[in-house]
Amino acid sequence: MLSVRDLSLALRSGELSPVEHVRETLARLRDDPLNAVVAIAPDAERVAEERAAELARHEWRGPLHGVAVGVKDLFDVVGLPTRAGSAVTADTPAEGEGPVITRLREAGAVIVGKLATHEFAYGTTGDVSAAGPTRNPHDPTRITGGSSSGSAAAVAAGYVPLALGTDTGASVRTPAALCGVVGLKPEFGVLSTEGVFPLAETLDTVGVLAADTHSAAVAWDVLSRPDGTGGGIQPPGISGAHVGVLVDEYWHAHDFSLDASIRLLEKAGAEIFEIRTPFVAELAGVYADIVSAEAYATHRRWLADGAPYQPETAERLGAVADAPAWRYVAAQRTRRRLTAEFAAATADMDVLIAPTTRLRATPIGERRTPQGHPVRTDLLDLTCPFNLTGWPAISVPAPDEGLPAGVQIVGRRLEERGILRVAGVLER
Amino acid sequence: MLSVRDLSLALRSGELSPVEHVRETLARLRDDPLNAVVAIAPDAERVAEERAAELARHEWRGPLHGVAVGVKDLFDVVGLPTRAGSAVTADTPAEGEGPVITRLREAGAVIVGKLATHEFAYGTTGDVSAAGPTRNPHDPTRITGGSSSGSAAAVAAGYVPLALGTDTGASVRTPAALCGVVGLKPEFGVLSTEGVFPLAETLDTVGVLAADTHSAAVAWDVLSRPDGTGGGIQPPGISGAHVGVLVDEYWHAHDFSLDASIRLLEKAGAEIFEIRTPFVAELAGVYADIVSAEAYATHRRWLADGAPYQPETAERLGAVADAPAWRYVAAQRTRRRLTAEFAAATADMDVLIAPTTRLRATPIGERRTPQGHPVRTDLLDLTCPFNLTGWPAISVPAPDEGLPAGVQIVGRRLEERGILRVAGVLER
Repeated sequence: MLSVRDLSLALRSGELSPVEHVRETLARLRDDPLNAVVAIAPDAERVAEERAAELARHEWRGPLHGVAVGVKDLFDVVGLPTRAGSAVTADTPAEGEGPVITRLREAGAVIVGKLATHEFAYGTTGDVSAAGPTRNPHDPTRITGGSSSGSAAAVAAGYVPLALGTDTGASVRTPAALCGVVGLKPEFGVLSTEGVFPLAETLDTVGVLAADTHSAAVAWDVLSRPDGTGGGIQPPGISGAHVGVLVDEYWHAHDFSLDASIRLLEKAGAEIFEIRTPFVAELAGVYADIVSAEAYATHRRWLADGAPYQPETAERLGAVADAPAWRYVAAQRTRRRLTAEFAAATADMDVLIAPTTRLRATPIGERRTPQGHPVRTDLLDLTCPFNLTGWPAISVPAPDEGLPAGVQIVGRRLEERGILRVAGVLER
Repeated sequence: MLSVRDLSLALRSGELSPVEHVRETLARLRDDPLNAVVAIAPDAERVAEERAAELARHEWRGPLHGVAVGVKDLFDVVGLPTRAGSAVTADTPAEGEGPVITRLREAGAVIVGKLATHEFAYGTTGDVSAAGPTRNPHDPTRITGGSSSGSAAAVAAGYVPLALGTDTGASVRTPAALCGVVGLKPEFGVLSTEGVFPLAETLDTVGVLAADTHSAAVAWDVLSRPDGTGGGIQPPGISGAHVGVLVDEYWHAHDFSLDASIRLLEKAGAEIFEIRTPFVAELAGVYADIVSAEAYATHRRWLADGAPYQPETAERLGAVADAPAWRYVAAQRTRRRLTAEFAAATADMDVLIAPTTRLRATPIGERRTPQGHPVRTDLLDLTCPFNLTGWPAISVPAPDEGLPAGVQIVGRRLEERGILRVAGVLER
C-alpha cells in the first residue's frame, strides 16, 4: 500500500515527479484485476504536469501536492459521468464538482479516476453493480464490503494512496475493515455532500479511505480546513484517554475479539471502561426505515419507469414503496431520543471501541452466513448506529491474522483528529 | 386591551399591586363569555403575593414583574392537566414545565391560567375543541382563528396583557389577525418547544400574543435573553429599511389591501420593493404533507384505540394514515429547495410584507367562504410559507376599519427585534 507521507516526501523533494507518480498510478488503474476502477480521469496527466511545473517553481500546496486520489463513482467529477454503479444513470459527463473535490484539487491532489460502488451505494457487500462485483485484494473470490468497494480495494491493492468514499450506514468503514485499510467517517454534516449522488440525506457522510491513519489524517486536515494548514501532524499520545468498550452481546463479532486492541490501548496509557448500551438494537432498528424511505423518494420515478436496476436493488427499493410516512417520522423521533440516551450513557468517554463488522469478507454473491444471518446486516449493524447518532468513527485494521477485520473507534468527547490518534495506536 | 408598559409602570411604582392585578385578572378569566379560558392556575394569587413581597423589598425582576400571563393549553404548567383542547388527553396534572414557562416565571410573570386551543392545535379556525368554539371579542358569532384561539381572544378582550401561543403554520399570527392583536412567531428553533404538546416537530414554534408591539417586544426580550436585560426598548426608526411587498396573486387577501400599510412604511422612510415569488404555491403545497405526517405519527395509537377526538380532527388525521414515506421525504426536499429559492429572491430585503390571512373572521362552524374556498386554508396559506422557511414573522393589526385584519411582517435580514420595530410603524 502507498503512504501519503512517503509519497509526499518523495514528491516534494523531487525524487518522484507528480507526472511519473500519476502515470504509474494510471497504469495500475488500467491493469485492474479487482474490478475496482470505473473510469480514468482524462485530465490526470495534464493536471500532474501543472503540479510538477509548480514544484519546479518551488510552489508547494501542501502534503497532497501531486498525490493521486481516486473517488467513488458517486462524486461528480467534471468530464466523467456519475454512474453510481448502475446502468440507470446517464452517460452525460458531470459539469460541476462539489466542495470536497474542489478542496482536494486546491490542495494539489490529482483526481485520477472513478472507483466502483455498490449500486447507488445501497448495500454493504460491494458485489451488486452494473459493472459486476468488486474483488477483495486479499482473496479475489471474496467481497470487498461496500458500498465504497472500489475505494477500499484500490487503496488496499496499492493503486492509489487515498480515495474518497461515502458512508450512510457502513460504506466507508465496512469495506475498509474487509480490505484491511483505514476508513474515516467524519461527524455528520461537517463535509458537504453537494455534488455527491445521495443515498439518504439525513445519514450521508463523505469519508476517506487510506493505507494508514497518518494518510487519512493528512486528507482530513485538507478536507476540514479550507486553508490547508495543519498537515496531519498528530499529538503523540493517548495517555489518560477514556476508552469505552461496547460490551453488550449486540457488539460481538463472530470470529474476532477486541482483546489485543484493548491491550495495545492500555499499554499506550488509555483507561478502559465497559459500556452497556441496552438500547442499541432499538436504535439500529430504525436505520432501515430511514434509509429506505429517503432512498425510495430518490429512485421512485426511475423504478416506476422500469429503469435497468440490478435485481437485488430493485427488489429492496420496491419493497418499501408503500412504507407509511408515520413510520419514517417515528423512526426519526426514536433516533433523536436514543441518540440522547447513547450520549448520556457515554458522556465520560473520549472514544468508544467496537468491532467494525461482525464478519470478515465472505464469498462474492453469498447472502447468508454459515450462522444463517444476512451478510448485509452483519456488515451494517455495528457501524450504522454512528450514522444515526452522527458521531465521527474510524475503522482501522485489527491487530490479528487472516483475512482483515476492522476495529472501530468512535468519537465522543474526541473529534476526528482525536479518533485518528487513538486509531494510530492500533496500527502495526 | 392591556399594555405591558402601562401595567409594568403601575406595578413598579406601587400604584397597582401584583395581588390586585392578578385578582382582577382572575375575575376576568372566571367571567369569560368567549370560551377562551380553560383553567385557572390555582397558585396564581400565592405567586402574586411573592412578587408583591419582592417589590416591597425593592426587588424588581424586570418589566414582567407581577404581570399576569395566560398560556395556550398545549404548554405544561405544573398542577394543571395539558388538555390541548381535547377529550383525548388525561386529567393528570403536569409535573414539569418547559424552559419558556420557566423563563417567564423567572422574569416575574404570574401564570394565571390556560387558554383554549383548536384541538391539538390541528386547525386554523379555533372552533373545534372538546370545550366548544372560542368566540371572537369583536363579534361572538365569529371565529377567533386558530389554533391559539384562547390566547388571541383573551388578549383582545383585555383578560390578560400577554399570552403564549404556538405557531406551526398559522396558529399565532392568524388568531392575532382575526382578533386584532399582535402575534409574534419567532424564527424556528430559537425558543425551546420542550414541555409543549407537539403538532409537527419540524414546524412548531412557540410565540407570543399581546395588545401591541411594545408588549410583544418586552416578552420577546425575556424569552430570548436568559439574563432578562433589554427591556423591550426598540431603536426608533425604520428609515432606509428595504421592505419587499409580496405582489403575486397568491398573496392577495379577499377584502383587504396593503396600500395603507405601505404608505405608513414609506412615510417612515422605508424603501418599498415589489417581490415576485412564483414558487410559493409549490412551497405551501408541501405544508400539508409535512404537518399531517408528523401529527399522525403522534396520534396514531390513540386514533387506533378509538379515543374521543372531535369528528373533524379524527377525520383529517385518519385521512393521512396511509400517506407514503416517500411523499414526506420529497416534501421536506421541496421545502429545502424552495426555501433556498425564496431566500435568493429576497436576499436584499430587510423584511417582507403580506396580509396575514385571506379572510377576516368568519361565522363559527363555517367551512367554505362565499367564494367557495375552504376557510381553513384561506387562514393558513399566507402564514405557513414562513413556517416552512423558518423565518420570523409577526402579525400586526391592519390600519383599516371593520372586523380586524392582520398585516404580516416577515424577517429576512432583520430578526425578531427588527420586525417588531417595522410592525410598530403600522400601529395606530
